[in-house]
Amino acid sequence: MYSVTVRDHMMIAHSFSGDVFGPARRLHGATYVVDVEFRRPDVDADGIVVDIGRATDALKAVVATLNYRNLDDEPAFAGRNTTTEFLARTVFDRLVAAIARGELGDGARAIAGIRVTLHESHVASAAYEGPVTPPRA
Amino acid sequence: MYSVTVRDHMMIAHSFSGDVFGPARRLHGATYVVDVEFRRPDVDADGIVVDIGRATDALKAVVATLNYRNLDDEPAFAGRNTTTEFLARTVFDRLVAAIARGELGDGARAIAGIRVTLHESHVASAAYEGPVTPPRA
Amino acid sequence: MYSVTVRDHMMIAHSFSGDVFGPARRLHGATYVVDVEFRRPDVDADGIVVDIGRATDALKAVVATLNYRNLDDEPAFAGRNTTTEFLARTVFDRLVAAIARGELGDGARAIAGIRVTLHESHVASAAYEGPVTPPRA
Amino acid sequence: MYSVTVRDHMMIAHSFSGDVFGPARRLHGATYVVDVEFRRPDVDADGIVVDIGRATDALKAVVATLNYRNLDDEPAFAGRNTTTEFLARTVFDRLVAAIARGELGDGARAIAGIRVTLHESHVASAAYEGPVTPPRA
Amino acid sequence: MYSVTVRDHMMIAHSFSGDVFGPARRLHGATYVVDVEFRRPDVDADGIVVDIGRATDALKAVVATLNYRNLDDEPAFAGRNTTTEFLARTVFDRLVAAIARGELGDGARAIAGIRVTLHESHVASAAYEGPVTPPRA
Amino acid sequence: MYSVTVRDHMMIAHSFSGDVFGPARRLHGATYVVDVEFRRPDVDADGIVVDIGRATDALKAVVATLNYRNLDDEPAFAGRNTTTEFLARTVFDRLVAAIARGELGDGARAIAGIRVTLHESHVASAAYEGPVTPPRA
Repeated sequence: MYSVTVRDHMMIAHSFSGDVFGPARRLHGATYVVDVEFRRPDVDADGIVVDIGRATDALKAVVATLNYRNLDDEPAFAGRNTTTEFLARTVFDRLVAAIARGELGDGARAIAGIRVTLHESHVASAAYEGPVTPPRA
Repeated sequence: MYSVTVRDHMMIAHSFSGDVFGPARRLHGATYVVDVEFRRPDVDADGIVVDIGRATDALKAVVATLNYRNLDDEPAFAGRNTTTEFLARTVFDRLVAAIARGELGDGARAIAGIRVTLHESHVASAAYEGPVTPPRA
Repeated sequence: MYSVTVRDHMMIAHSFSGDVFGPARRLHGATYVVDVEFRRPDVDADGIVVDIGRATDALKAVVATLNYRNLDDEPAFAGRNTTTEFLARTVFDRLVAAIARGELGDGARAIAGIRVTLHESHVASAAYEGPVTPPRA
Repeated sequence: MYSVTVRDHMMIAHSFSGDVFGPARRLHGATYVVDVEFRRPDVDADGIVVDIGRATDALKAVVATLNYRNLDDEPAFAGRNTTTEFLARTVFDRLVAAIARGELGDGARAIAGIRVTLHESHVASAAYEGPVTPPRA
Repeated sequence: MYSVTVRDHMMIAHSFSGDVFGPARRLHGATYVVDVEFRRPDVDADGIVVDIGRATDALKAVVATLNYRNLDDEPAFAGRNTTTEFLARTVFDRLVAAIARGELGDGARAIAGIRVTLHESHVASAAYEGPVTPPRA
Repeated sequence: MYSVTVRDHMMIAHSFSGDVFGPARRLHGATYVVDVEFRRPDVDADGIVVDIGRATDALKAVVATLNYRNLDDEPAFAGRNTTTEFLARTVFDRLVAAIARGELGDGARAIAGIRVTLHESHVASAAYEGPVTPPRA
């Protein structure tokens, strides 16, 4: 299995609901350093997993939908805790959609899986990984 | 698959038996920076893999059983080489026991797997990962 | 010159005023990984710059005054942009005050200077450093 | 599953063919920080995955076949793009061959899998992982 | 003293002349992860050392003059060894010129010093630091 | 001012005397990741601060005098606490002596200062820096 990983980051505000969150129920914020690993069983004819320029741009575009925002005000997240786990899944879903729309190039349709890791500090991170179902032609 | 990773560290002394260890047969020591990744297929109703506060406390409690010690004097390790691999497994086993005792909360009983990585320097690490068998009710 | 550096982190929300800040004028947030370097010309009789336990606790106490907060609501910061530079200075001032109150121990009164670095992402940080004026006896 | 990871690096020049590479079609270069993870289901009688000294030497030997070179001039790579993905596979193949030759010791024949990660910058890496087929006796 | 640090990277090929360089006399390459620290005694009215967006853009522009190139072919470097030290100084000089041209904004003219660090691997880096002489009006 | 920094590491056991050390009075250990920064006002005719190969070898030789040892048994340290600060100074002194003996080459006699940083974990480090007095001819 081959993989390529690219990194970007985003800086957001949010608060959580639920006793388990303690002081994080207050409005606070986080920098998430985001690593996205694209996986596929073999490389393409150019010798790559994905066009790293397009992958970087696609990640930047996804990050831009979240960056410099108070996630408590985002309609898409109403009633949800925007935990690090949840945001890792959100980035995953939006990248899978970008691949399906062809934004990472035709070759990227061979991507078999993605792992998204959000580092929230030097001592904590969360990740979501899953298969990428090829879009129907 | 979702995961959450927390980090702590411990500083121990030990020595090894066996020609393969060369100068490490002498009494020496190590700082182990310990990363523990908790995995489960889905998040709970709060949107989390595990209560990160409890996970951090549980790791701290496990690390405290090893920290600032000469492992050559630990009865539990008599006759064993406390290699980085062995200590990764030890941390794993003790965390699994903590989960079974309910110390990470009831939700943590849904944790499906754990990966423990011990970084012994900027150029070497060891890890142990395995499934977490749910305790019998 | 000797120094000791300890690390902690904090997760805050804030917004900025001023055209220079662009999208950061919106309410957003940051994780700041905080490094504090304590400097003095010579070590004490125990061979240390500062009691690292007390230094860590003092940093944790300062961080706790900022952590999990929306800094826009902090009276102490009214009318100020809580930039990374400003917060580095804030942590510096509060640590100097803690030293003056004796919270880092009597030996810490020999600390000659402090450098506070706040890492806001994997690609950006800010710092403030200055001398520590010994408190009058 | 247990694993041990060791790190080394290499500094090479190369150029790529194909429109997808943009400015990287020009002769340029890279430092690759190389992480190799050796995996096996259980440790040996000494409590280790692999003799870390031999593993480090084997990685150094593989890196030496690539280091301080213009890969465009390497006959072994004629007609191929020496992408990060391709080089991760190359390091993998050469380490598997070293294991088969017994250079990591007899115990290393129990290694079940290897993951090679090449970090090309603070924001990009590529990896290849695969099983290690035990050599026939 | 306040400072702000931003990071970028570049990937170049080059070779060195002189026995001291050993195998690095061959054409090879490097990724340089470039950290630039901007220093000034006080922050401006916005509470910042420099517009971090402009600083990042200025660094990107400087890096673009070196990135994806064989430095042996650059007329500006004819007869010079483009060592990490030399390149740190080059980045410094080009940033000072950018400040003088006003590319980092008028406020940046108060920058008193710059430190440029080039990380060439996980075990080696070089830096150049110096004062920034304010341009004559 | 130019500088070059190289990294190595060592793994030692030791214990401390003095109430301030708490549990670290017990025999324990540490991995120290050692960064040595060599500084000089200008580079030499080859464009370098120091022969990085020789600097790396000199650091390795100094580290070898401490590595895989119980420092409590070292006659040179009798009656001393081998704190991180103390060990940073020890590495400094031994490197200065190596320079004086010419082990880093004649050019290294122009080195004006050295900073030695010992990272003992992901959250703590200590450093010693000072001028290098040129040896009398």
